[in-house]
Amino acid sequence: MGNIKTVKVNDCEIGGDRFIFMAGPCSVESEEQIMKIATLLDELKIHILRGGAFKPRTSPVAFQGLGLEGLKLLRKAADKYKLLVVTEVMDTKDISLISEYADILQVGTRNMFNYSLLKELGKARKAVLLKRSFMATIEEYVMASEYILQGGNEDLIYCERGIRTFMKETRFTLDISAIPLIKQMTNRPVIIDPSHATGIRSLILPMTKAGLVTGASGAMIEVHPDPDKALSDGAQSLNLNQFRAVIEEVRKLENQIKASD
Amino acid sequence: MGNIKTVKVNDCEIGGDRFIFMAGPCSVESEEQIMKIATLLDELKIHILRGGAFKPRTSPVAFQGLGLEGLKLLRKAADKYKLLVVTEVMDTKDISLISEYADILQVGTRNMFNYSLLKELGKARKAVLLKRSFMATIEEYVMASEYILQGGNEDLIYCERGIRTFMKETRFTLDISAIPLIKQMTNRPVIIDPSHATGIRSLILPMTKAGLVTGASGAMIEVHPDPDKALSDGAQSLNLNQFRAVIEEVRKLENQIKASD
Amino acid sequence: MGNIKTVKVNDCEIGGDRFIFMAGPCSVESEEQIMKIATLLDELKIHILRGGAFKPRTSPVAFQGLGLEGLKLLRKAADKYKLLVVTEVMDTKDISLISEYADILQVGTRNMFNYSLLKELGKARKAVLLKRSFMATIEEYVMASEYILQGGNEDLIYCERGIRTFMKETRFTLDISAIPLIKQMTNRPVIIDPSHATGIRSLILPMTKAGLVTGASGAMIEVHPDPDKALSDGAQSLNLNQFRAVIEEVRKLENQIKASD
Amino acid sequence: MGNIKTVKVNDCEIGGDRFIFMAGPCSVESEEQIMKIATLLDELKIHILRGGAFKPRTSPVAFQGLGLEGLKLLRKAADKYKLLVVTEVMDTKDISLISEYADILQVGTRNMFNYSLLKELGKARKAVLLKRSFMATIEEYVMASEYILQGGNEDLIYCERGIRTFMKETRFTLDISAIPLIKQMTNRPVIIDPSHATGIRSLILPMTKAGLVTGASGAMIEVHPDPDKALSDGAQSLNLNQFRAVIEEVRKLENQIKASD
Repeated sequence: MGNIKTVKVNDCEIGGDRFIFMAGPCSVESEEQIMKIATLLDELKIHILRGGAFKPRTSPVAFQGLGLEGLKLLRKAADKYKLLVVTEVMDTKDISLISEYADILQVGTRNMFNYSLLKELGKARKAVLLKRSFMATIEEYVMASEYILQGGNEDLIYCERGIRTFMKETRFTLDISAIPLIKQMTNRPVIIDPSHATGIRSLILPMTKAGLVTGASGAMIEVHPDPDKALSDGAQSLNLNQFRAVIEEVRKLENQIKASD
Repeated sequence: MGNIKTVKVNDCEIGGDRFIFMAGPCSVESEEQIMKIATLLDELKIHILRGGAFKPRTSPVAFQGLGLEGLKLLRKAADKYKLLVVTEVMDTKDISLISEYADILQVGTRNMFNYSLLKELGKARKAVLLKRSFMATIEEYVMASEYILQGGNEDLIYCERGIRTFMKETRFTLDISAIPLIKQMTNRPVIIDPSHATGIRSLILPMTKAGLVTGASGAMIEVHPDPDKALSDGAQSLNLNQFRAVIEEVRKLENQIKASD
Repeated sequence: MGNIKTVKVNDCEIGGDRFIFMAGPCSVESEEQIMKIATLLDELKIHILRGGAFKPRTSPVAFQGLGLEGLKLLRKAADKYKLLVVTEVMDTKDISLISEYADILQVGTRNMFNYSLLKELGKARKAVLLKRSFMATIEEYVMASEYILQGGNEDLIYCERGIRTFMKETRFTLDISAIPLIKQMTNRPVIIDPSHATGIRSLILPMTKAGLVTGASGAMIEVHPDPDKALSDGAQSLNLNQFRAVIEEVRKLENQIKASD
Repeated sequence: MGNIKTVKVNDCEIGGDRFIFMAGPCSVESEEQIMKIATLLDELKIHILRGGAFKPRTSPVAFQGLGLEGLKLLRKAADKYKLLVVTEVMDTKDISLISEYADILQVGTRNMFNYSLLKELGKARKAVLLKRSFMATIEEYVMASEYILQGGNEDLIYCERGIRTFMKETRFTLDISAIPLIKQMTNRPVIIDPSHATGIRSLILPMTKAGLVTGASGAMIEVHPDPDKALSDGAQSLNLNQFRAVIEEVRKLENQIKASD
């Protein structure tokens, strides 16, 4: 296996020497909320702010995100601290609008099989974070990514975010073995999303460590100033202090591994 | 449970007294192919011609369908015999084009969670056949359909097409219990797709019978003049004679049930 | 496919012309309970009484069945009305004891992979009802049955009782396609258990009909005089009147099919 | 969470400070084979020899293990190097025989729901390694272990060995999140079996590392002097050199973590 094809966005390299974090709330809710989080990311030297502006929700009457207003808040918070923005795009017709505000375009788990969307993203000049469908085999996942690559867009990041199984205790089953498998097949960076995968706060730290030692290039983690009042996915979000503790523990492990290598 | 909300398209009623069939090839391949099938449908008094023009395929280098040319062939064959056309729409930007040629717009299993597409179909003035995602619970499926209904489009047909399980012997597992469950929850017509669900020719007849006796309003079945040469999904397609035999057997069962009711 | 290898126990033929029922409570609880049910079976001309005496329960502190006392009650009720008894055997060391009271030895879903038990049952001189493990492929199921057949015991009945999937609305997913598949592979009788598979009373009738038209030779159904007070699995049990209605509906369908064949 | 309830067998502590290994072939095949492996374990300071003597196999005509002869070979090899023996018990009637030769009694994945076996093991005076059924939720797994604990046997070790999912690229899906979950619920040691879980040699090292950082107390790994000639499960077995490399890499990570703690 040659060198991994890293993805560089501005000064941030995904797939390089350092394990990176993408962090933020499930949904952008207010300027105060997103600024608090951006301030913390800056303090912790995390470079990528995530947040949902256009949200795919199971029910049409659930909160669907702030839309354009959410995008503007993300950009404002990111610009203040020189952060990158990653946010989801759900429809081919939204790509150009979202591209004005985001640095990395995310395809959510429900749209991994939306080949029309993938084809259009192949033509985009933005990095793409392609989440694995929660019921895709590795072959289907890698094939789906080919729709993007064949369009000429090589700035591709994979994300294992849990598969649907019979398990009841966790929301999904984080398929750790997918990390080395996808890297072997594609030689591109893979990150994990332990928040959505487990749905359980206390599992975010151990699962992120598991990602780190199996070759993941980073983790996407949900954080919220007040998880109990979050408009979506509060149960799996870390509060600011919990989040800080997780980052410190993961970095400690990273340093332990590298110190003596 | 009151009367089922039937869907009428021209003279054809889905959810009414008769078990209906939607039949045709996985992909439209040529005028000769689609005409042969349309001729057979006419002979068997089947009113709905299915066929893929825009195909979602796992691999970007697999045959992707004839596109507009396929739509025109479907329409031509349908018009000759006064058939209805049902075909898949994969992208919001294709809805108006496909609506010119099709009578029923199909959402495929990979796009059931594509809420942007569903919202746009809620505004369309065409009946929609919404296939269940192979990874959706019943609740998620019914919720997804609400995206269409809330847009004002009430001409909605559900389709159980198999869920992904650990099973190896069949392509998917046809969830027969979903038929009564969805009907109880929605009071709308549900059809089944035994071809994609099983991937095995010999199971199409028994599974269609199972659908009939559990309350399905119809079945969508793949038929091809020469399945071994089909450009996609040949292994599960019936040839013309096999198809005729299946239709006759299902109708015989339907008549047996109704004769003495 | 030649003639199916029917299983004859006394005068009762499983796999023959008539669709048979095995019915009774999840657990034998009292003489009054089991007598009420046996009386109803006699009235409805059902020949096989089921009931658990030794119960495999997820928790060691849940009701584990009446044991030997349960076996005696089953036999007493059966003898009064010339019924056959089918009940579960969980351990090689219980085979001879249970064989004194039962006519058909049932292997439960949790023990299909218990090859030691299957080998011993191969030497038994009693018919065996082998339930499919809720996570066995068809190949694994048929292979497991070979442990019994190779021991010389040919009186074998298969039972599809639902597989474990991601589904939340039903307890398991009844794999109707397994019925024709197992029959094709083994040429032996297959019955279904819609009670355990669905866990939902209202699905028992449609699922039993689905079994009938796809080639099942019978159904095992839970019935209880007072389901709300059942010591186990009450939610899926039919009361006596509901049960009578299901039997009548299934027999009506059976007669409709046969009348005009 | 208080201190973990470690299991001590002779001088070996499972759940204590050191990550332990149980290693050996899927099946004991010959004295030469098992001696070669025992010699390597001794060299690598691994204290527990695993090997199947009574094998549960999907097909009754597949190799079923050497039985008593296999037990004797395991004991002989273990005694030469003062190793412990862990081997599978499949039937209540074999417990006393196997207890004469083994130090730890293993319950295989197919027998986790065999409550009769678990009850008897609750009375045994041997440590028990209870593998998770590939179809058990965490709740079912912990409940099953209660059958052993309630019998008075507290020397219990859990083993996550992969669950059955829709995945095709790996044999099972190793559920890494189960490790912290089971530890939280039981406060007892959990080990992992990456060999059976993945079925892929190259995944054994990363998955073992994932186990180590998420709190597993050890790993059970298949090793064979000549995997290509193994009578069972060769594809997932490491040869002696590969095995040595895996052990060294895992210990290096363990030391890195502990050095700076």
